[in-house]
Amino acid sequence: MTDVVLHEQGNSRKTATLYFQLAEDLAQAIANGTLQPGEKLPSIRRLSAQRQVSLSTVMEAYRELEDRGLIEARPQSGFYVRAARGFAVPDLTQPPQKPSEVVVDPLLAPAELARLHDLKVDFGLAILSPKLYPNQQLQRILAQVTRHDPDILSDYGNPIGDLELRRQIARRSLIWGGQIDAEEIIVTNGAIEALNLCLRAVTQPGDVVAIESPAYFGLLQILESFQLKALEIPTHPQTGISIEALELATRNGEVKACVLLPNFSNPLGSLMPDENKRRLVELLDTRGVPLIEDDIYGEFYNHGERPRPAKAFDKTGNVMLLASFTKMVAPSFRVGWVVAGRWHRELEQLKFINTFSTPVPLQRAIARFLENGGYDHHLRRLRKACAEQVNAAVSAIQRYFPGDTRLHVHVPQGGYVLWVELSARVDTLELLQRALAEGISFTPGPLFSPSNSYRNCLRICCVEPWTIRHERAIQRLGELAGDF
Amino acid sequence: MTDVVLHEQGNSRKTATLYFQLAEDLAQAIANGTLQPGEKLPSIRRLSAQRQVSLSTVMEAYRELEDRGLIEARPQSGFYVRAARGFAVPDLTQPPQKPSEVVVDPLLAPAELARLHDLKVDFGLAILSPKLYPNQQLQRILAQVTRHDPDILSDYGNPIGDLELRRQIARRSLIWGGQIDAEEIIVTNGAIEALNLCLRAVTQPGDVVAIESPAYFGLLQILESFQLKALEIPTHPQTGISIEALELATRNGEVKACVLLPNFSNPLGSLMPDENKRRLVELLDTRGVPLIEDDIYGEFYNHGERPRPAKAFDKTGNVMLLASFTKMVAPSFRVGWVVAGRWHRELEQLKFINTFSTPVPLQRAIARFLENGGYDHHLRRLRKACAEQVNAAVSAIQRYFPGDTRLHVHVPQGGYVLWVELSARVDTLELLQRALAEGISFTPGPLFSPSNSYRNCLRICCVEPWTIRHERAIQRLGELAGDF
Repeated sequence: MTDVVLHEQGNSRKTATLYFQLAEDLAQAIANGTLQPGEKLPSIRRLSAQRQVSLSTVMEAYRELEDRGLIEARPQSGFYVRAARGFAVPDLTQPPQKPSEVVVDPLLAPAELARLHDLKVDFGLAILSPKLYPNQQLQRILAQVTRHDPDILSDYGNPIGDLELRRQIARRSLIWGGQIDAEEIIVTNGAIEALNLCLRAVTQPGDVVAIESPAYFGLLQILESFQLKALEIPTHPQTGISIEALELATRNGEVKACVLLPNFSNPLGSLMPDENKRRLVELLDTRGVPLIEDDIYGEFYNHGERPRPAKAFDKTGNVMLLASFTKMVAPSFRVGWVVAGRWHRELEQLKFINTFSTPVPLQRAIARFLENGGYDHHLRRLRKACAEQVNAAVSAIQRYFPGDTRLHVHVPQGGYVLWVELSARVDTLELLQRALAEGISFTPGPLFSPSNSYRNCLRICCVEPWTIRHERAIQRLGELAGDF
Repeated sequence: MTDVVLHEQGNSRKTATLYFQLAEDLAQAIANGTLQPGEKLPSIRRLSAQRQVSLSTVMEAYRELEDRGLIEARPQSGFYVRAARGFAVPDLTQPPQKPSEVVVDPLLAPAELARLHDLKVDFGLAILSPKLYPNQQLQRILAQVTRHDPDILSDYGNPIGDLELRRQIARRSLIWGGQIDAEEIIVTNGAIEALNLCLRAVTQPGDVVAIESPAYFGLLQILESFQLKALEIPTHPQTGISIEALELATRNGEVKACVLLPNFSNPLGSLMPDENKRRLVELLDTRGVPLIEDDIYGEFYNHGERPRPAKAFDKTGNVMLLASFTKMVAPSFRVGWVVAGRWHRELEQLKFINTFSTPVPLQRAIARFLENGGYDHHLRRLRKACAEQVNAAVSAIQRYFPGDTRLHVHVPQGGYVLWVELSARVDTLELLQRALAEGISFTPGPLFSPSNSYRNCLRICCVEPWTIRHERAIQRLGELAGDF
């Protein structure tokens, strides 16, 4: 790491950035197939002229790509693209078949790690870079909205939310075939409040809740605080929770609710096919088990159309769908929402007594942003940036991680987190300590499991534009993992 | 009511307002002792010249005051102030001595009544008029703060709150002798979130919580949702909860927490003397029962100095103090806070998992408003307006309510709600139905008690500048109460 830091901080910073940028562009072209395995790269002289950089910059970039194992020099001939190393095909996870008491170690939470350590590269926090958000635009809209009607500053607001915003949310649900009425929507302080309210509505302390495995530790912390037990259901890194396993698990009536992220779950990034979603909704409806569906990553698809929430297949009101504008538009606004189906009245009441209402000016500003079309443009940019960040991380892991590493997906279909399975020898809790000592953070696997499974796994969040810092941090993580 | 409405909406609106304003000024002067019982009022001609209004306006005003029973005409002599009718001295309340399951009828909540009925005058909602808030000023500050640093729009923020705001809160605690450090403060989505988090930290479903009697129904709804039982403690309308009764009630170890509003409780408006606060804190500390102190009305004192929270007497961290800027500055911002004493770590964690954080731009705007001195000026105006509204309501009730009515305090010491005890004959649930039919709302007594006590009591919120509409509504309520 020391070299890199010197490079970046010293006089040669500009050169370092130039050659690295060039190397990145070429790596990208190799990753996306523009440059095929076995294909010859342009000569150093030609690329130097094309990119208007010095010969030595091109040479440094080629050396970098050689170091990464992406290209090879053939004597008297030039540089050629090497065949990429593949990853093992991911398997269904195999958590224990009994419910677990939930106890989350708060000291392993990424925010806590960031607070306690001086981090150079933080792959732990799932918080996207401020650069990716439309802050200037939203700032102007917020100022307009409040200047035009200053009295909204003293408006307690409708506890279920501002009608203008609820209408926009309803309108957008048409995109995935939702027939949601504005009156069914309850605005919350972020998706996290919605999740709290849904669980308060349908569970009692001691109840068992079925979850994906691995599952987001934030969910586990909420289960812990309500003294709920978690039943981890086997989950496929590509297609999500196993319907068969869930079918078995819900037979004895013990499971009182099910919390899932069918679209780009965190940390697996899995996406349930529509057919699975339909079967999921039917199964849980038959069993009388409410489905709490967290769709906060649903807009982060890489290609094709926006995936449908499982709620799209709900005919009986058994699905509570929750989502948020936090990760998509304005983290500081804390504006989320929930459509609670047959628990609408309970949720309305719970929202009222948990925080009374959500700040009206912030709701109104988001409504205007949605209405005036800036939103879709912004989402396209955000999706593209996230996909690029994830691709860069995938190829870096491909280059630098030990050969027996499994990536849960070769080409993630959405979201911006990666789940990495290392050799069984590796203990990621120990790896984390070694990485923290070098200023690198990530989230160790056991944090995603109440049974402390996944000791050899870790989550990498790809939240910033990829740079040489990130590249070197992944390289170092790979080396540290190789030491086990 | 019909007459009044015609008056207000017709051509004579200006005249009606003129005479009413004059009558109000005189009633105020009588209420505050500027005009003493037995004193002669100015002649009609003289007052007409002084106030530059017509003779008939003065005559109408005097007739109005005569109707209200405030002045009397003595033949050949003029008008004289009559002796005011006194109210009975309030007693300690006598709730049942056993814990109650809590079930609140949501249909009686003021917000629900306002939603379902077309109200002309709403004494139910404890929501102050938008006119009383510094909306323009705050709007400018919010625009400045976000324009200067648009990146705070994408800032998740520190879950425990913005440091700038926490410093301002700490600084202001010096006023009542608090030695609070910014690091002890956790910012929440209004006081209501803080109350939820405090209860989540120290109770389990089925636990018994000691509360004032009568108690705010919002608190009761929260207890209900957590399946907590309520033990109503006898409370004095002037000096608050009975320490002796609490001493007895906490002997058997059944009470697991105590929630109180020592400063201007809602609905009684009682203010605990410092000595009682000291004894309260010592008692609960000895008993190992955490005190959750809700101080949202602490700034609404009518005279003298800001009353100290019980927290000021806490030496062991057994008191959790919570408050909010909602009622004082910006209802729509939903910014509250809590100092959780020895439960700080638990509250920090609970805040994190309940709503993650509080919107940073709104916290920052309030911090700037506190810092730049507009706050104190605003508070003085707000306090004055509330006191005037309460005084006007007290004298109207004095005039129009049946003779056996008790007001919990002659001159309320703070807050903006009134607790009125009517003759035992009156059923305020039935009275409410009759009042609603005429477009008038208030909150009936049983809503403030899990044992459904206080059927002959009601709460009146004084949230707007007093007008002839309010005057007539109180008159009509008095007539309806007299029908029982």
